[in-house]
Amino acid sequence: MVLDMESDMTSIILYSYFRSSCSWRVRAFLAFKGLKYQYEPINLLKMEHKESHFLKVNPNGQVPALIYHGRVMSDSGTIMEFLEEMHPEPNPALPNDLYERQIVRQISAHIGGLIQPLQNPFLASKMAKKYSDGDEEKIAFIKKDWPVSVISEGFVALEKLLEEHGGKYCFGDQITIADFYLVPQVANAERFGVEIHNFPSIERINQALLQEECFKVSHPSNQPDTPPQ
Amino acid sequence: MVLDMESDMTSIILYSYFRSSCSWRVRAFLAFKGLKYQYEPINLLKMEHKESHFLKVNPNGQVPALIYHGRVMSDSGTIMEFLEEMHPEPNPALPNDLYERQIVRQISAHIGGLIQPLQNPFLASKMAKKYSDGDEEKIAFIKKDWPVSVISEGFVALEKLLEEHGGKYCFGDQITIADFYLVPQVANAERFGVEIHNFPSIERINQALLQEECFKVSHPSNQPDTPPQ
Repeated sequence: MVLDMESDMTSIILYSYFRSSCSWRVRAFLAFKGLKYQYEPINLLKMEHKESHFLKVNPNGQVPALIYHGRVMSDSGTIMEFLEEMHPEPNPALPNDLYERQIVRQISAHIGGLIQPLQNPFLASKMAKKYSDGDEEKIAFIKKDWPVSVISEGFVALEKLLEEHGGKYCFGDQITIADFYLVPQVANAERFGVEIHNFPSIERINQALLQEECFKVSHPSNQPDTPPQ
Repeated sequence: MVLDMESDMTSIILYSYFRSSCSWRVRAFLAFKGLKYQYEPINLLKMEHKESHFLKVNPNGQVPALIYHGRVMSDSGTIMEFLEEMHPEPNPALPNDLYERQIVRQISAHIGGLIQPLQNPFLASKMAKKYSDGDEEKIAFIKKDWPVSVISEGFVALEKLLEEHGGKYCFGDQITIADFYLVPQVANAERFGVEIHNFPSIERINQALLQEECFKVSHPSNQPDTPPQ
């Protein structure tokens, strides 16, 4: 792992885990902006994000983390807002109109603040272990049941938002920051067995986005740390 | 409750619950910007946020919701970013430097994305009821234990962020959006009995901010829907 930041102050390094939905957001966004980066895998299952060599990079102990020309930043939403401000072109990902920006951020926050943090497998796992008195069957049940419950409930409100504001993409026919929240969240939903057909706007927009090059090259099936099939 | 938005297209209406930490963020931010608003109380304990008359305003069923000159918006972070863009003066709440903005947003996201959604009493309550087989003692335990655990863990990383970037306030000596996340979160922590003295930067900055007029007038002890002592 390259941690000598002094050695390359003009590069972009992304600390990512192939299956982390927040990492996927940033991988896709970097591709959308045409920004090349060095990929540094952090294996969440091996708890590498809590090891001291990574905590030196990102004291939060979270992926994704980005080193942009020597500056460390974390939180996927923060990173995307930064990249959007630093690289508005090509492919602006926020509308110019302030009311429209607000809608894009509201959709983003609905996924990034209300759904993803609560369906995070680490949350369900921690919760299950804390309160199940070591009952392995119950722990396994909670780890599956909780994310499904959170995502299903969150998608009901998300579907309404996309019915109202969506077009080809989450906000009309322009790819915006909100789309980088949607695709990884739908992948999580599918992984947990949530029935996406019940949410036609979510399903339609996700399908359209998956055709975009930036989501193809950043797909979890296709990363340096993706395990061989 | 005023829902006839057509009747006043030039006003600001805030749907708020006195004790909601996300509502407090926006109340304080509006005061910081010198923006007057009409206060519409939504009693979360009475589940008024899930009633149809409010869902017509905000389909998310979340407070705070803001009607800004006839446009409905929700999510406290989104609302603050909008107000900052619409009213950069007086009192800019984001630095001009892109790297500095990123730090402010990272601190904000740490509280708004990693701590608050997970310590939300509704989350603990839902979790406890779902998985405690009706054991009232266990439900009561989880409702208390879970938020303390989440906040304590989140404050360890937050303290590091504020040690590094904080001054009088969360980011140096300028009041920024991050501060509007801090104060309500510390109040939640105190309510759950988290020992703030263990986090000296958090404690110091919170004390400084509580002296500011915008946090005084927006304090939960002092709102139209605050119950009499």
